Amino acid sequence: MILSALLTSVGINVALCLLFLTLFSILKKRQSYAHLYLPRLVSEGKSQLGDGYNFERILPSVNWVKRAWQPSEEELLANSGLDAVVFMRIITFGLKVFRFAAIIGICVLLPFNYMGNQLNIDFTDLPNKSLESFSISNVDDGSNRLWVHFCAVYVFTAVVCYLLYIEYDYISSKRIAYFYSSKPQPHQFTVLVRSIPNSGRSFSESVESFFTEYYPSTYLSHSVVRRTSKLKGLINNADKLYSRLVHLKSENDTQQRFGRAGFMGLYGKRVDLVDRCEKKLEEMEDNVRTERSTLAGKEVPAAFVSFKTRFNAAIATHIRQGVKPTEWTTEPAPDPQDVYWPFFSASFLKRWMCNLAVIVACVFITILFLIPVLVVQGLTNLEQLESWFPFLKGILSLKIVSQVITGYLPSLILEMFISLVLPVMVVLSSIQGYISLSQIEKSACIKVLWFTVWNVFFANVLSGSALYRVNIILEPKRIPEILGVAVPGQASFFIAYVVTSGWTKTVSSELFQLKPLIWSSLKRTLGGKSYEEFEVPSIPYHSEIPRILFFSLLGVTYFILSPLILPFLLGYYCLGYIIYRNQLLDVYVPKFETGGKFWPVVHDSTIFSLILMHIIAIGIFGLKKVPLASSLTIPLPILTLVFNSYCRRRFLPMFKSYPAECLIKKDRYDQSDPTITSFYDKLVTAYQDPAMNSVRYSENSERINSPLLHSAEI
Amino acid sequence: MILSALLTSVGINVALCLLFLTLFSILKKRQSYAHLYLPRLVSEGKSQLGDGYNFERILPSVNWVKRAWQPSEEELLANSGLDAVVFMRIITFGLKVFRFAAIIGICVLLPFNYMGNQLNIDFTDLPNKSLESFSISNVDDGSNRLWVHFCAVYVFTAVVCYLLYIEYDYISSKRIAYFYSSKPQPHQFTVLVRSIPNSGRSFSESVESFFTEYYPSTYLSHSVVRRTSKLKGLINNADKLYSRLVHLKSENDTQQRFGRAGFMGLYGKRVDLVDRCEKKLEEMEDNVRTERSTLAGKEVPAAFVSFKTRFNAAIATHIRQGVKPTEWTTEPAPDPQDVYWPFFSASFLKRWMCNLAVIVACVFITILFLIPVLVVQGLTNLEQLESWFPFLKGILSLKIVSQVITGYLPSLILEMFISLVLPVMVVLSSIQGYISLSQIEKSACIKVLWFTVWNVFFANVLSGSALYRVNIILEPKRIPEILGVAVPGQASFFIAYVVTSGWTKTVSSELFQLKPLIWSSLKRTLGGKSYEEFEVPSIPYHSEIPRILFFSLLGVTYFILSPLILPFLLGYYCLGYIIYRNQLLDVYVPKFETGGKFWPVVHDSTIFSLILMHIIAIGIFGLKKVPLASSLTIPLPILTLVFNSYCRRRFLPMFKSYPAECLIKKDRYDQSDPTITSFYDKLVTAYQDPAMNSVRYSENSERINSPLLHSAEI
Repeated sequence: MILSALLTSVGINVALCLLFLTLFSILKKRQSYAHLYLPRLVSEGKSQLGDGYNFERILPSVNWVKRAWQPSEEELLANSGLDAVVFMRIITFGLKVFRFAAIIGICVLLPFNYMGNQLNIDFTDLPNKSLESFSISNVDDGSNRLWVHFCAVYVFTAVVCYLLYIEYDYISSKRIAYFYSSKPQPHQFTVLVRSIPNSGRSFSESVESFFTEYYPSTYLSHSVVRRTSKLKGLINNADKLYSRLVHLKSENDTQQRFGRAGFMGLYGKRVDLVDRCEKKLEEMEDNVRTERSTLAGKEVPAAFVSFKTRFNAAIATHIRQGVKPTEWTTEPAPDPQDVYWPFFSASFLKRWMCNLAVIVACVFITILFLIPVLVVQGLTNLEQLESWFPFLKGILSLKIVSQVITGYLPSLILEMFISLVLPVMVVLSSIQGYISLSQIEKSACIKVLWFTVWNVFFANVLSGSALYRVNIILEPKRIPEILGVAVPGQASFFIAYVVTSGWTKTVSSELFQLKPLIWSSLKRTLGGKSYEEFEVPSIPYHSEIPRILFFSLLGVTYFILSPLILPFLLGYYCLGYIIYRNQLLDVYVPKFETGGKFWPVVHDSTIFSLILMHIIAIGIFGLKKVPLASSLTIPLPILTLVFNSYCRRRFLPMFKSYPAECLIKKDRYDQSDPTITSFYDKLVTAYQDPAMNSVRYSENSERINSPLLHSAEI
Repeated sequence: MILSALLTSVGINVALCLLFLTLFSILKKRQSYAHLYLPRLVSEGKSQLGDGYNFERILPSVNWVKRAWQPSEEELLANSGLDAVVFMRIITFGLKVFRFAAIIGICVLLPFNYMGNQLNIDFTDLPNKSLESFSISNVDDGSNRLWVHFCAVYVFTAVVCYLLYIEYDYISSKRIAYFYSSKPQPHQFTVLVRSIPNSGRSFSESVESFFTEYYPSTYLSHSVVRRTSKLKGLINNADKLYSRLVHLKSENDTQQRFGRAGFMGLYGKRVDLVDRCEKKLEEMEDNVRTERSTLAGKEVPAAFVSFKTRFNAAIATHIRQGVKPTEWTTEPAPDPQDVYWPFFSASFLKRWMCNLAVIVACVFITILFLIPVLVVQGLTNLEQLESWFPFLKGILSLKIVSQVITGYLPSLILEMFISLVLPVMVVLSSIQGYISLSQIEKSACIKVLWFTVWNVFFANVLSGSALYRVNIILEPKRIPEILGVAVPGQASFFIAYVVTSGWTKTVSSELFQLKPLIWSSLKRTLGGKSYEEFEVPSIPYHSEIPRILFFSLLGVTYFILSPLILPFLLGYYCLGYIIYRNQLLDVYVPKFETGGKFWPVVHDSTIFSLILMHIIAIGIFGLKKVPLASSLTIPLPILTLVFNSYCRRRFLPMFKSYPAECLIKKDRYDQSDPTITSFYDKLVTAYQDPAMNSVRYSENSERINSPLLHSAEI
């Protein structure tokens, strides 16, 4: 790719970004878009926007930037929880790393690269210059200038490791502080017991007798999990019907209250739809009632067991309970809102098969994804595209077309395909048998991360067939060399990718909510079922964290190869900082709270990036005929791994569980709290399946005269 | 190797075995050898042998076999502990497996192998037949007879897995039963706390305040570990002097009581040695006393903390204590007799360096060991030996010489070199930082096992340079093929190895105690320091378990390749059964009790053997041109691994720690035990460093008037 193609891509993206930002700042001020841009405030009743047209309202402004900038970390913590703080720290960590990297890269490495003569590019025609002239490829073979790069690798690694340590330390201390400051929460007092042995009695009796025998003074209560998938289906249908009924009743137009009884309401005699709905709802209530009464017999060998203190819950989690290790297995319970109920109905065998299926599916998706990757590769190499489709020659010879095709299109296509993969990964994680939404999210996050790294980074870098790629793994000795050849060549593609996927994607889809905007506009025009409930979204960690981490991987690996990528990355992180703060404050409501458990993923991924950089550096120093530098780089990945193993020992346990010291202190503090008895009362019913008490009805302010729904709110 | 060479080897070994057995049965009856053959009974005061010469005494007999055969497993358990029972179960497990394998192998596989024509060996001259005619190599390529071998692989794997499951189940239930029946033991109530943070106070105060704060009702006592290596050295010297003094005093010959004061007692004026010793001892006592008084300042940040119940000790082990994961780390304490004290003096960095050094040393030893392996390989291939040393041609042409050289010598040499490696492995394990003798023994056991597997099995099987061997790891696809070619060729060597190392070695060195016998005879003739203490040995698990497991690996891998090995193995296991029972009853005293923790090593090693067999089978079916059988074998290792992962989940946790159920039950039982208060009193001082109370003196019946030694016995 030549410089002008890159500039085209940057130009298109900057224009798009500015357009979206302008539109956003206008639309944000209008009440009719509040459900898109301020859903959180709307749901909390804080949105104060009118819908009148005054002049100020239609002018773009940067007030939202100021608003997003202002809150301190403490305010963010109080507002959105520790996970949001950790999420923002991922971005500030990236900012810190790449601020340093950009200074070194642009001020030191770039001039050295540009001064090289290896590629024999003449200095006069800057726009048509290949981007390679700014990369390490341009440095002469065997030149002493490569020692500058060598030093940069060492210094950069040291700085990143230092920052990683500081950050891990800070977040783990935050985690402890958050725990100390938190109110008593049901999940802190509860363990999930699985594989309750079948002793002839009901599971509920087994649990009761087991825990009263062995934990007589501290056992509080339990709730056995029941197979409620059928009940859930029934309630879901009743829910929908109820919403429709409410909608019908609120309609002023009596015309709409009547419909035809036949197929799709198209023929048959005219009936009062409200009457029909009410009758149906009554039927459904009966069904729900009978289903509920049979539930006692549908116990699953799993139960949530609550204790009087956190410490005792921790004891029950950490120590094996039963003699048989496969029975009475315990694990920390997730928060009641965080529990993923469908899982419990699955048997052990089913879960095992699902796990296997998920692995196969992941492999299959990865292989399938090579097709778009090949297309993208074809687009970046115009010659190849011409040889595939000779009839395109005419169009491709137009300068602007070729620049758009090589600079903008590839990243856009790749980005689109990755968006398709995201929901698939969530579904895969959810059928893997996790018991909480947060675990599913974390698992999907890791899946997407490695999928992105493998399919976007490696598949793009290593040209050739898929088989060739697999063979590399079997030849560990050649990996540095192969990467050293392949990685620098893709620098320009990844710069374009940062601009397209980082800048425009973040602005358009994250801030501007392009897809929901189009969707809601379509619905409004077509007059869809507007009585459907308006739901406040929660931040999709599984798509955002991998993206941020992937950019950090790009930045780290290309730091010595092609420092030109660094300013663009820095731009991305600055944009991201403002946009995500705005989103956390105005749009997203936390669905769960893991207490910063996403950070270890970030740490591991950064260590991986560093080691990948070292391997590439070893390869490239070898290729550039400075074997001494190549050999002297070898200790660096080893030192990084030693550092990582120390961090794992020093910090990771704090993200797994809380220590006895904290638990006992917090328990003692609770003893003096007068509200603890009322908390215990709540705790007893906290882990009832939501299907047992239909929460959704109680949230509505309008009520329907239904004895079922009222009785269910207990 | 031809059949007659094998028979020569078997002949030599059988003759040696009979000789040793005869001598053993004679010498065992004599009082003067009781310290070799009945040390346990001697130490327990049960040895009832006179030293008179009556006729019966000099006749060989098989009474000892009857004596060793009789005791039931319960008696063995009561007599030698669970570890001894598990040790014997390793042998009976081998017996069961190879009884089945021998029936299938000899009755089904061997005839099929012999009937093949692949090797074109004529049927007339049986003694000069190569052993290969009994192996799978003789089956015709592509023959349908190979499906018999294929079925045998599946059936054998199923039977071994079934036996493994039964055995794991049995031993884990034994382990729980042993726990229930055991008396209260200090280590059950105690945890080892390490990395006590330095808070300005002494470590002892820190521990006291930490545990009284967080475990006020259950914390009992603690003893901080102190740096006692210097004190230990002083006491050791005092010990030696004391022994000498006792010896001098008991000497009747007054001549010996006097010696000269000069160098080595060769010149100078005559002095009373007893007086001199007593003076020296007094000096040493002073030194010990001053050293002990300074000990308070030499605290190590580690302490043994005892609790009132087992359950609370388990809580302290399983739950992280301090906020910082690197501080207040806890682990189960070993038994006081099992503690390996020297380790505690080492700093963290020193231990880390030691660990690194151990890895390097292991690699170095492995490489160094290739030299004897190459020598051994040269001996089995006479042609190669002749080409190396042409002058040997004359001698080698003698039939008997060549048969001894190819049949007997190689295994003997290999066996000798392995004996040299054994103590090295123990030393390496002991500097790795384990805190108990049992852990050192287990670690050494695993080291020796893998060393044997790699150096005796793989190094012998894969001819060629060491580099070639490393390259195989990098080409996983070719492993089955390479093993399929190489392994069958070494069948005859391993049969000879079983006979030499299994039969003769076990009989001579284990039962006959050849080395100690020669040593003690030498000492007796030369008149050595006979006042040195007589120590009852404990069973060297690290040398015996790897040997037994290695033979089981040979049996499993050669089961389909060369079933001729199986009768010899069966013979080994039968011999081993009687011999080890005899040794456990009469010779060895258990030094520690792990509660059967060696079994998981046995399980893992057997699974490894099975998978190795599968890989070889895949290779050999491929080579024999039955690709379908080769492909159909592939699921077998996968199924075996699934079985293993189930076993790890089902049984392994029981070998790591005891469950809450057992601990609480046992604790409750203790509450009603009247002796528990006196046990608590003992527990408080149980974990004092032996250097603080010199135990060895108190064991002697004779006393010397020394205030120090008396005061130290508190």
